[in-house]
Amino acid sequence: MCGIAGVWNVKDAFSVLHDVLLGLQHRGQESVGVVVDGFKTIKGKGLVDTVLTEDRWEDAEKGIGHVRYSTAGSLEDIQPIVAFTRKGRLAIAHNGNIPNGEKWIEMLKEKGAVFQSSLDSEVFLHLISMSEGDLKESIVKALKKVPLAYSLLILHEEFLAAARDPYGVRPLFYGKYGDGIVVASEDAALKAIGVEDIEEVPSGTVVFFSNKGTETVRFSKKEKRFCSFEFIYFARPDSHFLDQSVHIARYRMGEELYRENPIEADVVVPVLDSGLSGAMGFSSASGIPLDIGLMRNRYVGRSFIMPVDREKIVKKKLVPIEDVVSGKRVVVIDDSIVRGTTMGIIVKILREAGAKEVHVGIHSPPVRFPCFYGIDTARKKELVAGERAVEEVKKIVNADSLFYLSLEGLKRAIGRSELCVACFSGEYLHE
Amino acid sequence: MCGIAGVWNVKDAFSVLHDVLLGLQHRGQESVGVVVDGFKTIKGKGLVDTVLTEDRWEDAEKGIGHVRYSTAGSLEDIQPIVAFTRKGRLAIAHNGNIPNGEKWIEMLKEKGAVFQSSLDSEVFLHLISMSEGDLKESIVKALKKVPLAYSLLILHEEFLAAARDPYGVRPLFYGKYGDGIVVASEDAALKAIGVEDIEEVPSGTVVFFSNKGTETVRFSKKEKRFCSFEFIYFARPDSHFLDQSVHIARYRMGEELYRENPIEADVVVPVLDSGLSGAMGFSSASGIPLDIGLMRNRYVGRSFIMPVDREKIVKKKLVPIEDVVSGKRVVVIDDSIVRGTTMGIIVKILREAGAKEVHVGIHSPPVRFPCFYGIDTARKKELVAGERAVEEVKKIVNADSLFYLSLEGLKRAIGRSELCVACFSGEYLHE
Amino acid sequence: MCGIAGVWNVKDAFSVLHDVLLGLQHRGQESVGVVVDGFKTIKGKGLVDTVLTEDRWEDAEKGIGHVRYSTAGSLEDIQPIVAFTRKGRLAIAHNGNIPNGEKWIEMLKEKGAVFQSSLDSEVFLHLISMSEGDLKESIVKALKKVPLAYSLLILHEEFLAAARDPYGVRPLFYGKYGDGIVVASEDAALKAIGVEDIEEVPSGTVVFFSNKGTETVRFSKKEKRFCSFEFIYFARPDSHFLDQSVHIARYRMGEELYRENPIEADVVVPVLDSGLSGAMGFSSASGIPLDIGLMRNRYVGRSFIMPVDREKIVKKKLVPIEDVVSGKRVVVIDDSIVRGTTMGIIVKILREAGAKEVHVGIHSPPVRFPCFYGIDTARKKELVAGERAVEEVKKIVNADSLFYLSLEGLKRAIGRSELCVACFSGEYLHE
Amino acid sequence: MCGIAGVWNVKDAFSVLHDVLLGLQHRGQESVGVVVDGFKTIKGKGLVDTVLTEDRWEDAEKGIGHVRYSTAGSLEDIQPIVAFTRKGRLAIAHNGNIPNGEKWIEMLKEKGAVFQSSLDSEVFLHLISMSEGDLKESIVKALKKVPLAYSLLILHEEFLAAARDPYGVRPLFYGKYGDGIVVASEDAALKAIGVEDIEEVPSGTVVFFSNKGTETVRFSKKEKRFCSFEFIYFARPDSHFLDQSVHIARYRMGEELYRENPIEADVVVPVLDSGLSGAMGFSSASGIPLDIGLMRNRYVGRSFIMPVDREKIVKKKLVPIEDVVSGKRVVVIDDSIVRGTTMGIIVKILREAGAKEVHVGIHSPPVRFPCFYGIDTARKKELVAGERAVEEVKKIVNADSLFYLSLEGLKRAIGRSELCVACFSGEYLHE
Ligand SMILES: Nc1ncnc2c1ncn2[C@@H]1O[C@H](COP(=O)(O)OP(=O)(O)O)[C@@H](O)[C@H]1O
Ligand SMILES: Nc1ncnc2c1ncn2[C@@H]1O[C@H](COP(=O)(O)OP(=O)(O)O)[C@@H](O)[C@H]1O
Ligand SMILES: Nc1ncnc2c1ncn2[C@@H]1O[C@H](COP(=O)(O)OP(=O)(O)O)[C@@H](O)[C@H]1O
Ligand SMILES: Nc1ncnc2c1ncn2[C@@H]1O[C@H](COP(=O)(O)OP(=O)(O)O)[C@@H](O)[C@H]1O
Ligand code: SF4
Ligand code: SF4
Ligand code: SF4
Ligand code: SF4
Ligand SMILES: [Mg+2]
Ligand SMILES: [Mg+2]
Ligand SMILES: [Mg+2]
Ligand SMILES: [Mg+2]
Repeated sequence: MCGIAGVWNVKDAFSVLHDVLLGLQHRGQESVGVVVDGFKTIKGKGLVDTVLTEDRWEDAEKGIGHVRYSTAGSLEDIQPIVAFTRKGRLAIAHNGNIPNGEKWIEMLKEKGAVFQSSLDSEVFLHLISMSEGDLKESIVKALKKVPLAYSLLILHEEFLAAARDPYGVRPLFYGKYGDGIVVASEDAALKAIGVEDIEEVPSGTVVFFSNKGTETVRFSKKEKRFCSFEFIYFARPDSHFLDQSVHIARYRMGEELYRENPIEADVVVPVLDSGLSGAMGFSSASGIPLDIGLMRNRYVGRSFIMPVDREKIVKKKLVPIEDVVSGKRVVVIDDSIVRGTTMGIIVKILREAGAKEVHVGIHSPPVRFPCFYGIDTARKKELVAGERAVEEVKKIVNADSLFYLSLEGLKRAIGRSELCVACFSGEYLHE
Repeated sequence: MCGIAGVWNVKDAFSVLHDVLLGLQHRGQESVGVVVDGFKTIKGKGLVDTVLTEDRWEDAEKGIGHVRYSTAGSLEDIQPIVAFTRKGRLAIAHNGNIPNGEKWIEMLKEKGAVFQSSLDSEVFLHLISMSEGDLKESIVKALKKVPLAYSLLILHEEFLAAARDPYGVRPLFYGKYGDGIVVASEDAALKAIGVEDIEEVPSGTVVFFSNKGTETVRFSKKEKRFCSFEFIYFARPDSHFLDQSVHIARYRMGEELYRENPIEADVVVPVLDSGLSGAMGFSSASGIPLDIGLMRNRYVGRSFIMPVDREKIVKKKLVPIEDVVSGKRVVVIDDSIVRGTTMGIIVKILREAGAKEVHVGIHSPPVRFPCFYGIDTARKKELVAGERAVEEVKKIVNADSLFYLSLEGLKRAIGRSELCVACFSGEYLHE
Repeated sequence: MCGIAGVWNVKDAFSVLHDVLLGLQHRGQESVGVVVDGFKTIKGKGLVDTVLTEDRWEDAEKGIGHVRYSTAGSLEDIQPIVAFTRKGRLAIAHNGNIPNGEKWIEMLKEKGAVFQSSLDSEVFLHLISMSEGDLKESIVKALKKVPLAYSLLILHEEFLAAARDPYGVRPLFYGKYGDGIVVASEDAALKAIGVEDIEEVPSGTVVFFSNKGTETVRFSKKEKRFCSFEFIYFARPDSHFLDQSVHIARYRMGEELYRENPIEADVVVPVLDSGLSGAMGFSSASGIPLDIGLMRNRYVGRSFIMPVDREKIVKKKLVPIEDVVSGKRVVVIDDSIVRGTTMGIIVKILREAGAKEVHVGIHSPPVRFPCFYGIDTARKKELVAGERAVEEVKKIVNADSLFYLSLEGLKRAIGRSELCVACFSGEYLHE
Repeated sequence: MCGIAGVWNVKDAFSVLHDVLLGLQHRGQESVGVVVDGFKTIKGKGLVDTVLTEDRWEDAEKGIGHVRYSTAGSLEDIQPIVAFTRKGRLAIAHNGNIPNGEKWIEMLKEKGAVFQSSLDSEVFLHLISMSEGDLKESIVKALKKVPLAYSLLILHEEFLAAARDPYGVRPLFYGKYGDGIVVASEDAALKAIGVEDIEEVPSGTVVFFSNKGTETVRFSKKEKRFCSFEFIYFARPDSHFLDQSVHIARYRMGEELYRENPIEADVVVPVLDSGLSGAMGFSSASGIPLDIGLMRNRYVGRSFIMPVDREKIVKKKLVPIEDVVSGKRVVVIDDSIVRGTTMGIIVKILREAGAKEVHVGIHSPPVRFPCFYGIDTARKKELVAGERAVEEVKKIVNADSLFYLSLEGLKRAIGRSELCVACFSGEYLHE
């Protein structure tokens, strides 16, 4: 759960990286880093505008950057990673996860490799350094070795490389900006600064941007399998994947959800922000009016006084508007349920605010399996729907009814088939 | 356009002030200040969490704070203001504006008064210092002299005073927090930290909180006239005034707007964030589905690369989702039009995104007169509806149709009559 | 115990103020402030280069600044002070102390004056505001009212005023810098940035620097009485007062001290830094070699681990070099003894390091009376020599012998007669 | 030109590292870093108290730290360096230089090694990772491979290792602190915080400090050759090496210098600060009085307005006191001459201040050869005495006479023979 950005031959590269990473901030709020010309590195914990401040500005024309969802603590574990190898000096930024990454790391250490971090991302650097051939050849060889999941940026003095794994699990886009190139995890972050002619980096492909032009190397012929969870929850609603708008996909998930589960109710209440698009679709399909029954307190993350108790935290974040829900049959719409704790509290808040009935609609299927490809559900050992029937989950969250979207409904809503749905179906790509 | 907060006899007063001011951040983003025990002062330009950082934390049990909308520049002009008088040491925080404030200031300077800032708020300090009698009497005398508009907090070693002008134009609430008291401009900011037994400071009244208890002095018998613009635009949607929910009032403004202006269209598009509540009401009343046709880029204020051109700024902030509006008859809903520039650009963006028709619905009446009571429309010399008929404004913003809510409709939606509507009607309170 | 600086019509006024205040840093380390064009104010606790950082840089051509020795705590008590009066906007920076300052303040408050700080410096602002006549006349009238002690800078939009009390107790110098003027407490701070044609502001005089030229108003005919303690201890050794070098004066104090007290010893050990110049003179006059018997730990003020115990603090600051003092008859030379505590510990350290004899030579007379004119000995209620004979003090500091310089010897060393010596003689200027 | 520090089993390890590094600040002002428990890393450019601020404080009981003289620019090049190897996680801090370090680096890269910095210090990490055996064995093997010059600290979860190269070129000391151990480049930095039982890490030895006790491994039998330049210039005057006080050694160098070069003059003027100890010795031996003819402006490094012209920079730093030198025969004493530029300007300043004659005495021999062992004279390609006779250097600096201390005189003054003097004699240790 990270976002990456790169620029080549662009005026004020630091500012551009800042703005693009700001546009990817939702993909990771724990740490930020950029590496620019001369491999100058600016890194820190926290948000983009806390770390990439004006007084740390560097004159630059190229660079890569990274926002990270969660970091183990030390400064070293912030990407990008810089390295000196016999093939030259490199910096790398990685979105995704290598299944069994620790095994790769152990194997390389046994050969005497010295790692500077605990990140599986560093595997690529050692594979490149150990490969025979010139640098570009070595990069292609290294990429061929690691099956998935990665969207990868490599900065070298003479080029910027943007690579995507054989399945294209994680997103990656690039486009023109003045005489140069900007690369980013989501197209919306590119559009926001005025990047033009935006294209996807194809799956199984590495694109080298240099002053001599653009060189594209396709190194794998696998079939595309893009992460459906990016559509459901992770990406910005104004982004597009597989030429499909994320907001529209979510809106349709809401519509499909109603079609599969026609229900009578007085008001549709979104779990802000991630449930809003779906709730609009649900409201439009059902004709049940949409209203803000739970106000979202945007500043909650910055409060000094925070309850330890999880229920109080959620209550601080989601404030009910009693007049909206009191005495009503409420359908609350959210994108997904992972552990179920939050949803249980939401139902409780709505009941305490006087809701007559609370129905929970989820515009994706039950998450039953961990993700090994870079979405952090794996850490959540206890997926509430992991071993349970929907009826049981309903009881746990204490809803009057609970309904999910079917896998078919999800695919219909997205309108695309080249999808990974492993966390719903258990059919992994790497086995 | 400011927010104020006060605490008395509260553990970790600094943290409480931080959190309450955070909850009032929408009332002012230019500067923040707090004064706590021993009149220790922490002030700065920028946002609450930029200024009131942990390393500036002070041990304290009482204090007042202020967030300010726009500041002339120097450190002195950040509230609260601290002063040493023969009646003791005082700090003051003021929300509101004194009509003809400069005349008051000139008059006092002629008497030899030395001001430490250019704020009309300082007038209260000199009036108190010049009055005969003990400190509390002097405060009451000073308040009686200034007709309006103020919600005021005064910190003294022995008490915290919370006062509201005779009309109660600006809001002010207080409640219990542990063994102490917390005061704030909006109840939602109190609720967010768990304040209980929340009450309004009545108009024309000053409440003294001290270790001996609470003393209430009513110093004026005027009729209440609360700012309707707080309902329409300025306040948080989860706040309440005159026992009415702001969100619900806006939702009803949207409903009334449709009732007064029934129109056919394919999609209702809110101008986020301020137009969302009204747009929901409009959608619910009309049955026209609501959709996000303009995504709001939340990070726009923190970008490094900002166009100078106003149109480009708005375009950066409001990104159209073409699939939502293309080929559609769009009703765009916003709370108000001030100068009209933004709305003109919004219409343009929607047309460029393929909207077939663009109708503009405003859930308040035309703003025709400047406000002298603390809402910053006065600075905007050119109110687009100041001298123009609605039909002319429609042409300026280039809408297919433009419709406002009537003054009656507004009052019906709010459901209260003790309102100031001077900026719509021109009937001022102070003449 | 403060330093003041001013600039008029100078490019990069912020940088100039920064550098001049840096050169006056020894006069005050507790807080710093500057006020520049448009009365922009930058203030903070701590050292010049901690407060006047590059990111707080302001474009400016004029301004005043202040370094303060000790501050009561709140941000308001940092100079310069800015005020709005009927005569216009003013900023003031003050070095010195008004005897019975509190009485002046009380008297003004009784007239209804509102003070923004607890500093007696603010008295000048109220006197100016209350005086009849134009601003310059009012300034002269105000200065006439306050007998002493002040070196004062007043910034107005149209001029910079530099004033010195009738006795010229505190120093003040100015000179040319490009097309403009720079003013400072010590000439060495002016020389360091290349100021030319340096002159003293005469005592009992105010000089107005404006774009129309320089206007000098002598408002008092009192005889000059410059603080001898500036020569002895407070000023930089490379400064000059009454056309006499401070270092040379101290060197001669050391010579005179030996002449008045010929003693036999093996090594002369200075108490660094303030005792070095005098110790050199003593060594030269006596032929006893000078050596560093006590190394000064410059970083002591910034340590994280600090003993609370005063002896341990001094031991951390002054480290003996045993080979220098062991088995030797040591004469330790310092500029003055105030409370005597430090000197007692120094003697102890030297004895513990093996000194056979420890003789203490002080190159000024015993401090017997408090200073009311701006040197902070008053706070030290217990002047060790206040009520005691030298023999008794000797016992308290446990020296083998203790000798001071006579008042005559001090005057001979300085070679000037227009001196205040009240803290030695008790003959105050203001009674 | 660096300083290193380590702590093991010490309360508030962060504070201790801060204070010890503060005491080593003179060994490097460009960057600072510490690594503490859990390999938490705090690094930054600038001074100790700018980087190791309270808000970056970490709870810790062990750690290592480093101050660096000059850094190429990027964050990666700040020590300590942290690495993950098959032998576990390590951090390393290195003082010294490996002659032909680039060759070592190239050789390791050819084997596929990935470096995280451009520092030769990283060589140790790769040698350890590639060695067979357990971690301690691997460390000893690695140390045996690199001939010189290093004082090295290695932090592992279970021990702190302190190693010194076979010649003991760079200093390293340790002692008891509470129940734990503190290690530092100089004993004075240990003494300042109260470390007891201070001992040198012997040359050719590594000491492992762990919770099981102290284990000492001597891995080389070479003869000791400690850097004489540490005595002459680099170390603090209150430090001791080979049981000799640095200040006393310098004082004696001054005495020897006079004995070898008896000269008639009126005043001895030290080049502060490094020339002071020697000048005292010179004054004592000659009977010529010592005086401050050149005041040192301590704040010069923090000025905002800095001339580009080298002469003006030196003039800003060293201000002549005319009354001290005017009309006099001056002997100026400094520790060494490297490029000669500064000394040329000093002579000029003294002449401009009226000195009748300027004689230059240097209390060490001419620096004729670059240092490859960690003192940064190598970068100064143009050693003024590299290819020139003393007479020629005298002309370049424009002195009336110039005299150096002989190599024999230097050794006599230090009173020890286990010295490296390669930069004077050209007899290197590593050839
Ligand atoms: N992989 C994920 N990691 C973190 N949050 C997620 C993830 N996937 C979805 N979410 C968001 O977090 C919410 C998870 O809700 P839920 O499982 O009920 O609560 P919780 O995980 O806090 O117990 C969803 O509404 C969704 O918006
Ligand atoms: N007093 C006010 N000051 C600032 N913004 C306001 C004020 N009142 C309303 N607003 C908000 O600003 C918007 C004003 O829009 P508009 O007049 O079209 O643009 P602009 O003032 O930028 O030309 C409204 O939608 C409303 O949300
Ligand atoms: N007014 C003053 N305030 C603070 N320090 C002073 C003052 N006058 C002199 N000093 C310096 O402080 C030292 C005072 O020494 P002493 O009286 O022995 O110790 P202490 O005041 O710490 O007990 C003097 O050596 C002198 O350098
Ligand atoms: N290796 C070194 N690196 C930096 N400064 C040194 C070194 N050795 C000595 N110095 C100090 O710097 C001064 C060098 O003076 P000099 O050679 O005259 O000037 P410069 O090197 O600036 O031209 C010496 O007085 C000494 O104090
Ligand atoms: S397993 Fe789920 S979250 Fe992971 S990549 Fe596949 S669809 Fe996305
Ligand atoms: S004039 Fe308008 S904005 Fe001002 S107080 Fe009255 S209603 Fe509010
Ligand atoms: S009393 Fe002493 S310290 Fe004060 S001004 Fe006079 S000489 Fe200076
Ligand atoms: S060559 Fe000179 S500077 Fe280098 S280690 Fe030897 S004595 Fe020291
Ligand atoms: Mg969610
Ligand atoms: Mg708006
Ligand atoms: Mg002293
Ligand atoms: Mg030197």
